Amino acid sequence: MALPDTLPMTFPAPGLPARVRIHEVGPRDGLQNEKTLVPVAVKAEFIRRLVEAGLTTVEATSFVHPKWVPQLADAEELMPLLEGTEARLPVLVPNKRGLERALALGARDVAVFASVTESFARANLNRSVDEVLEMFEPVVAEARTAGAEVRGYLSMCFGDPWEGAVPVSQTVSVARHLLDMGCAELSLGDTIGVATPGHVLELLSALSEAGIPAEKLAVHFHDTYGQALANTLAALQYGVTCVDASAGGLGGCPYAKSATGNLATEDLVWMLDGLGIETGVDLRRLAATSTWMARHLGRPSPSRTVRALSQKEN
Amino acid sequence: MALPDTLPMTFPAPGLPARVRIHEVGPRDGLQNEKTLVPVAVKAEFIRRLVEAGLTTVEATSFVHPKWVPQLADAEELMPLLEGTEARLPVLVPNKRGLERALALGARDVAVFASVTESFARANLNRSVDEVLEMFEPVVAEARTAGAEVRGYLSMCFGDPWEGAVPVSQTVSVARHLLDMGCAELSLGDTIGVATPGHVLELLSALSEAGIPAEKLAVHFHDTYGQALANTLAALQYGVTCVDASAGGLGGCPYAKSATGNLATEDLVWMLDGLGIETGVDLRRLAATSTWMARHLGRPSPSRTVRALSQKEN
Repeated sequence: MALPDTLPMTFPAPGLPARVRIHEVGPRDGLQNEKTLVPVAVKAEFIRRLVEAGLTTVEATSFVHPKWVPQLADAEELMPLLEGTEARLPVLVPNKRGLERALALGARDVAVFASVTESFARANLNRSVDEVLEMFEPVVAEARTAGAEVRGYLSMCFGDPWEGAVPVSQTVSVARHLLDMGCAELSLGDTIGVATPGHVLELLSALSEAGIPAEKLAVHFHDTYGQALANTLAALQYGVTCVDASAGGLGGCPYAKSATGNLATEDLVWMLDGLGIETGVDLRRLAATSTWMARHLGRPSPSRTVRALSQKEN
Repeated sequence: MALPDTLPMTFPAPGLPARVRIHEVGPRDGLQNEKTLVPVAVKAEFIRRLVEAGLTTVEATSFVHPKWVPQLADAEELMPLLEGTEARLPVLVPNKRGLERALALGARDVAVFASVTESFARANLNRSVDEVLEMFEPVVAEARTAGAEVRGYLSMCFGDPWEGAVPVSQTVSVARHLLDMGCAELSLGDTIGVATPGHVLELLSALSEAGIPAEKLAVHFHDTYGQALANTLAALQYGVTCVDASAGGLGGCPYAKSATGNLATEDLVWMLDGLGIETGVDLRRLAATSTWMARHLGRPSPSRTVRALSQKEN
């Protein structure tokens, strides 16, 4: 039985933004956690379909050293296939060398990936939190000189697998550094998915007190404990208008121990559609794209909305 | 790596209740959708463990005709095994005969199951909405005469697979009828999981205008589209303090087409713990119970929290 198109019904709620920009991370953050290597032509087609479904910002790939993330080792081949795409296509750059490769291929939006905790900075980049920030300073400066806009990711903002609780003040301090060095937008990452709505409000309000307003912020929740959408609602209620999500919940496979549990873009769009919040995204077209991608990965999408819509239509 | 016990961190948020009562539906609403027949001794042990984990209300079984729901055909055998359990153990009664069987076995809390839509009333009970209510009138009266407390379930409050959109006024009308006939509490069911937070607020506010306050209400969300916890947050913000949930997300198997997607009690408790809202439930003990039950059913729990906690501990 097909779900009637009248669902979800639309009921705006007080105190929410009229429009939300979705920062789609499926092709980068999603795919980099998938073990099945995806051919570059399929990646280009995936990004094209996401843009056709109405997504205006699609993080395309990463210029990390190919040895670190084999899935994204084809960044140089992918970029030319995306020429003419009518959307912002940010790419992750881990250092100066990565930035130069990205700029040479025409990247206009780049992102750097900082850690709020010492343990993860050490595990991920073998540096201290401050050394990571120091390393990024010239990268951000060079990107801006070249006319690119820079997004700063902050990982482990709400908890850390080694350190447990992460004081809000640590996140505020790293956020301040990234803005001061020239980042235009900060993405607050709940890398292990442990945040709850009050924690989100506490962090947003501490950032606001430190002079960092909601307009500069995006939220990046993982669904590891099922909290991502409730946390997103709390962030929207606080005034955040940019939300990171991964088409089909890519990277968050429930069948693998490596599950990272990205918030699925479809689950997010279902809620935003129901709240009458404009995103420009066509939910059913997006879900069809994720179902298509899931076939390439050889397993069902972990997004509940994708599963429910595709079951009803089959 | 074991998740540090300091997570989730606790941050109360404004405008939320200090305490929430969880109405655990796993043994009834959860199991009735599971195909694997569970032995009666395992069911009794399951309920005992749920109560030991701190749940104060555990819906135990249903006195429907055994032919309708084979999984719950052992209600008569189960009830004596639960004697002395220190918790409220409501049972579903579909009609006068079911009520009499339940009362004879010592039930002190019963529930009736009404539909908000004509299509589901017809599909489920082969009656109109009004005929279902008429049938329940003497059942509720007799239950109250016997000193039992009656809960009224309202199914399809937010959408219906045949009718699509469901006007809020239909739910208000059925709610009014159930209260007038003597139900002490109403559970608002999003049977197909299509609600979003603004819709929840719209319904709660329409009920309040009709003289039905939040204290009389419980919310019963399904996670079919991943919305259950965000909807719960909206209901808590409105003042609802009773939430239905199913241990381990029982009945909501993501691997089967029959997935009904009950909100998992563990995902709910994770959020409530993070918000500092008291439930009396020990999250890790509850998750261990759901992992134990999942082994009996021969498949992993669909609860994200149960999966994440059990992966880290293995």
